[in-house]
Amino acid sequence: MHNMTSEMKACIDECLGCYQSCITTALQHCLIAGGKHVEPMHFRLMLACSEICRTSAHFILLGSEHHKHVCKECAELCEECANSCDEIGGMDDCANKCRECAASCRSMI
Amino acid sequence: MHNMTSEMKACIDECLGCYQSCITTALQHCLIAGGKHVEPMHFRLMLACSEICRTSAHFILLGSEHHKHVCKECAELCEECANSCDEIGGMDDCANKCRECAASCRSMI
Amino acid sequence: MHNMTSEMKACIDECLGCYQSCITTALQHCLIAGGKHVEPMHFRLMLACSEICRTSAHFILLGSEHHKHVCKECAELCEECANSCDEIGGMDDCANKCRECAASCRSMI
Amino acid sequence: MHNMTSEMKACIDECLGCYQSCITTALQHCLIAGGKHVEPMHFRLMLACSEICRTSAHFILLGSEHHKHVCKECAELCEECANSCDEIGGMDDCANKCRECAASCRSMI
Repeated sequence: MHNMTSEMKACIDECLGCYQSCITTALQHCLIAGGKHVEPMHFRLMLACSEICRTSAHFILLGSEHHKHVCKECAELCEECANSCDEIGGMDDCANKCRECAASCRSMI
Repeated sequence: MHNMTSEMKACIDECLGCYQSCITTALQHCLIAGGKHVEPMHFRLMLACSEICRTSAHFILLGSEHHKHVCKECAELCEECANSCDEIGGMDDCANKCRECAASCRSMI
Repeated sequence: MHNMTSEMKACIDECLGCYQSCITTALQHCLIAGGKHVEPMHFRLMLACSEICRTSAHFILLGSEHHKHVCKECAELCEECANSCDEIGGMDDCANKCRECAASCRSMI
Repeated sequence: MHNMTSEMKACIDECLGCYQSCITTALQHCLIAGGKHVEPMHFRLMLACSEICRTSAHFILLGSEHHKHVCKECAELCEECANSCDEIGGMDDCANKCRECAASCRSMI
């Protein structure tokens, strides 16, 4: 990883960590809990957040300058996802992961 | 697409078509219908099927010989997903897409 | 695909078509042609463009409102990729696909 | 991550680590080094390996039983990729990552 700064490496870790958190929380927690946890708005957001996190990490890894724009969008989705987790409750770990990832992505912009 | 046979091109189309069908049926139909449609077994299968279809297409596009193994696995998941759609009902289009994709993937093996 | 407009469906098709074009042109044409075709700037752009196209389609399919932002970014990368294809030459089909996809993505914003 | 064993968690880490290693080695090292590093066989393998690693991790995260089959295929591609890195030389880190990931994936089968 030749031209990668420590901030970039940290952001990749945060993005892949948040991707993991959102996809497993959605599939292993929300689907089983049911009720508000599978409301379309929330569930869709969890999947959209996991996807943009994966893409964000990918753009940094590719070495594309456009990672800044993808990270900006990632930060927005992470914030929204964290708020949705807080509203429904019982997903503090995922909300924290999302906020940490959002902060890291904002440092890339 | 230099060395791509017409069977390969057809299989890419089937895989990307089935990917679209599974992901939208899960997100735009199952999540809204609720009940059996969001049972973990079924919903997980829909997402797993959409993912392997996307990967299957990607392997043919990359020109990797390993596309045969990924297509084999894709055919299995598509069959399983089609059966799950039939059991729950009301998802005939998605089940058909899955079976067409499975047939196309098997022709790649 | 319940709430999907015909523009959305067209945009998914364009995005998945451009994804296919960029990834196969990179892997089946550029890698074999060598020279300018594998210059880091160009090759990276081809892969980045194929990835954002895939993500863009995914966001429309998920039914996320954020597809607008991803489509905006996709349009920018597609334009850049088309220009890079034109500069190097011999990739008119891919450049055309990129410009069509850019136009379709801009109609989503 | 409710029903996830420590082996599963370790395998996700290996897969996402190997994905990162293959994609950055391809884009930040091979593309710049040129020559044998961008021979279609090798480069294609690097991208195919990074993709199956990403998919493998995704299947474990989704909680799909089919992760076993995807992990089996992942182990094969990782071995092949490691051998290709060794033949060309100068990519020991990536070869090691691939072999560690292959071992971890085999423990999932």
